This record gives sequence, C-alpha cells and structure tokens, in this order.
Amino acid sequence: MKLIRYGDQGKEKPGIVLDGSIFDLSEFTEDFNEHFFESGGLERLCKFISNAAKKLSKVNKAVRIGCPVARPSKIVAVGLNYLEHIAATGLPVPKEPVIFLKATSAICGPYDTILLPPGSEETDWETELAVIIGKRASYISQQDARGIIAGYSVMNDISERSYQLERGGTVDKGKGCNTFCPIGPYLVTPDEIEDPNNLAIWLKLNGKMMQNSSTKDLYFKIPFLISYISQFMTLLPGDIIATGTPSGTGHRQSPPVFLKSKDVLEYGIDNLGIAKQTCRNTSLSTQ
Amino acid sequence: MKLIRYGDQGKEKPGIVLDGSIFDLSEFTEDFNEHFFESGGLERLCKFISNAAKKLSKVNKAVRIGCPVARPSKIVAVGLNYLEHIAATGLPVPKEPVIFLKATSAICGPYDTILLPPGSEETDWETELAVIIGKRASYISQQDARGIIAGYSVMNDISERSYQLERGGTVDKGKGCNTFCPIGPYLVTPDEIEDPNNLAIWLKLNGKMMQNSSTKDLYFKIPFLISYISQFMTLLPGDIIATGTPSGTGHRQSPPVFLKSKDVLEYGIDNLGIAKQTCRNTSLSTQ
Repeated sequence: MKLIRYGDQGKEKPGIVLDGSIFDLSEFTEDFNEHFFESGGLERLCKFISNAAKKLSKVNKAVRIGCPVARPSKIVAVGLNYLEHIAATGLPVPKEPVIFLKATSAICGPYDTILLPPGSEETDWETELAVIIGKRASYISQQDARGIIAGYSVMNDISERSYQLERGGTVDKGKGCNTFCPIGPYLVTPDEIEDPNNLAIWLKLNGKMMQNSSTKDLYFKIPFLISYISQFMTLLPGDIIATGTPSGTGHRQSPPVFLKSKDVLEYGIDNLGIAKQTCRNTSLSTQ
Repeated sequence: MKLIRYGDQGKEKPGIVLDGSIFDLSEFTEDFNEHFFESGGLERLCKFISNAAKKLSKVNKAVRIGCPVARPSKIVAVGLNYLEHIAATGLPVPKEPVIFLKATSAICGPYDTILLPPGSEETDWETELAVIIGKRASYISQQDARGIIAGYSVMNDISERSYQLERGGTVDKGKGCNTFCPIGPYLVTPDEIEDPNNLAIWLKLNGKMMQNSSTKDLYFKIPFLISYISQFMTLLPGDIIATGTPSGTGHRQSPPVFLKSKDVLEYGIDNLGIAKQTCRNTSLSTQ
C-alpha cells in the first residue's frame, strides 16, 4: 500500500495511492498517527481497501501533499552512514551510529517550498531513506527489527551548515528550521519493497545530478539501526528513522554549493516516489 | 492555576490542584495537549473552574501523577546554563546557548520509578526548571517571549553519562532512555510565580543535599532562551524548554557518584512542587 496525506498544512487528510491516483479515505475515519500504527491500523486499512476500493473517490491531482505520518513523536536521524559519503568527509567510519533528533516542527510535504532562514547562506540538502516504525520497540533485536517496520518514505534532512557547525553544541540548531524535514510523497509498506538495501537514491539541483547512489552503500543496515537506537530510546509507532545521506551534499562540493532562492531540488528513491521543491528566501517579517 | 494529570502512564486524565488537593476535570473534557494550549485552553479552564470549583470531585491522594503536559511535540534542553555549574566543568561560559533535543518517549511522572538501563553504571541527575510554551513562536523577540509562557514545572534531565559522552556523536544517546524525563508534579501558570529568576532549586540523594542553587544563577535568562531557540526551530504550544541544571550533578563529584538501585531522589523548585523517585536496575527482560 501507498499511504498519503493531502490538504493544507496541519489539516491533511488520509488517502491511498492506487494505480498512480490518490483516493480519499475520509470514510476510513482514521489518520495515520501513532494510534493508527499502534493499534493495527495498517491491517484495518488493508481490509477497508479490499472491500471499498471501487467505491473510493479520486482526489484532484493538484492537491497539496503532506507528510504521510501525522505528528510522529520523534525523528531519529543517522549521520555518516553511506560509505562514499564518509570517505568524502575524510572522517573514519564510525564505530557505532551517530544519531541526533530532528525537531518534528520542521516537517513539511515533498512539494512544499523550502524556506531559507532569514540571512541563511549555507542551507544544504541530504536526501535520505526514511523508515517509519510500526510498533513500539525497546531493546529490540536485529532479527525482530524487520517486523516492526510500517513502511518507507523519501525524506530530506535539510541542514543549515553554519547553524549546524558554528553555533556551539550539537548539530540541532541547523536541522530543525521550518520546512527542513520534507517527507513523502507517501509511505510505502514493506511488501512493496523487495530489498530496501538496493534502491537507487538521487537528488538533482536545478536539473543537475548532485547525489546519485544506492542504499546498497548504507554502512549500518536498517535492522541494525532500529535495534541500536532502541537501546537508547523507545521507538514509538509512527516514529521516523532517517538513515543517512549519500555523498554529494552541497557543503562537500569544491567550492561549496548552497541553496539560493528559486533553486529547484528534485530527488527520489526507487519505488518510493519523487519530491520536488523550490527554495525561497525569507525575512523576519515573512517567517 | 496548577494543572496536573493523573492516572496510569499513557492514560492520564487532567486535573487541577486547589488548596493542596487534586480535583478531577473530566467534565472539562480537554487534555492539556498542543491543541489545548494553542486554542486558548488556559483561559477556558480558568472560566470553567471559576464556575465549577465547588462542584469538582476530589481525587484519591494515592493516585499516580503523570507529566502535566500531554505529548509535547518536543523538549528543547539547554546545557551549561548555571554559572556555578559552568565553573565546575572548567569550560568557558558559552557564547550562545548549547541546546539539544530530548526524546519525548522518555517522559514520566515525578514519583515514577527511574529505570536504570540494563548494565548502566553512570546514570546521573539534573534538576531543571521547565518552561512550558503556550503559543506558537518563531523568531519571537525577548520582549514578546514572556507572553507565550503557559507555565513552569520541575523536571529532571536524567542522563547516562557514558552513553552521553562515550558513544559517539551527540549527547542524545544518554538523554532519551525510558523514564529519563520526569516532569511535574504540576504546571504552574505564570501568575503564581512572582519571579522565575529567583526560585530555590535543589536535589537530595538519599536525603543528602546534592544540588542547592537558585534560578538567579541562570546565565541565559528565560525570555532570551525562548527568543534564541525560536530562531532555529518553531516552538509549538505544549513544547517544553529545560533551562539547564545547577552544579552538584553526580559525575562532577569527586569521586563521581552515580545512581544505584533503591537510591531515592527528592528534588524541587520553590512554588513548583517536589518530586520523589526511587531508582531500579533493569535487565533486558524487564525493560
């Protein structure tokens, strides 16, 4: 299944993608939130669609697409996890995953405008495979980790590098600005993904390929990441793990390339869809 | 007003503290969550209580107390913010606040058992003044910051120091374990706090005073912190800012002191109440 949420920011409604079109799920009456995943919502939705598919009404293609998960409790992001990307940084391969939390208030949809913070000169992209957690997990084994995945999605860990690296303390200041966490277009359930460790992942800036890799290059694999993170914090249904970005980010270019107003980012992952976003400068009065 | 939530973990109901007793607010029909704060819930609650105070039913004193805010979108914690604590670390005073995010899945109540993670040997305490945000804030000025505070509470930024400092990357691995974020007993609205920058803050370990300070010693004051954080991420109603801990944490003792099973922590802040928690070792089978 491909779960989607559409409508105005903060007022998204759940829908389902069938044969490339979005269908309304108002009659299903549930949003794709923690309670939905926790209480077997995916199974209920599957049954609902089997029974109702022919009666569902199609949604206008021009509708805004939001994040396919409603108000996740947290986004756990993994740094330095593609071998080629690690090599580009010149840093050693981490002994264990580097993780950080990304503010959920940064979430937006995959076609929304990316707002460059007032005065920001170093906003950068990081296309990532997002894993959406389906069941509560604490101290889970790698073997059991596969069974708690609700699905996968495309995300971009947009980062202001000067905020991230030059403002003291953790990376969090550069990771949580509004619109810095586009997720979508949809959540794809695991049955539709043959091998999450073999998906092309790419990003184009104004039509030019900047990131072009495969999840084959992931150093810490998904079951390991889920198990590892769950040793330090309980993963709740609907929580999102951002698995790291491949090489080709802007600040690693020579000279560095950062996002400017009107730049267009297009990026995607095999079988998980494509996002396309335009950047816009903001000022204190427009934020 | 003193807002409180009581009942089993995850099933807390809203209540109000009047003359030292808890009264049930079932008839008010709202929980103290993002929507409540965002939509003027404090004003509605104030009116409700004015009209209904004499009709409210008292709650059994033995009831479990939970966190007074339901499912905040994030907890933004400030590091190194008491001058005496900074001096104890030997680090320079930060040029700007050090911030990090604490996983909301770590939230528990102020009398709940603190679960020492399996094999953990370096779990430590950090009593903090928590500020609960009442209105959405992005790029807010210091002047306007006071007006968006919903209230204050006592919190403890429980931290596993080896996870925090020796496991690579950010501090987050040591900050988000289950029960590492007790908050409460209640949220006290600003009208009941004459000066949040002049409150005694203390913690006793097994009856011995370990932290004994005042929020006078806060280096970055609350309006500045709110304004500062809002430059990097939007604060949502119900979000919590942990303003930093005074000196006297366990890993700064000589020799260091860490929490052991059956240790009792008692801590509080003037006018904001007292928390009391017992520690318990856990194993992989009990977590």
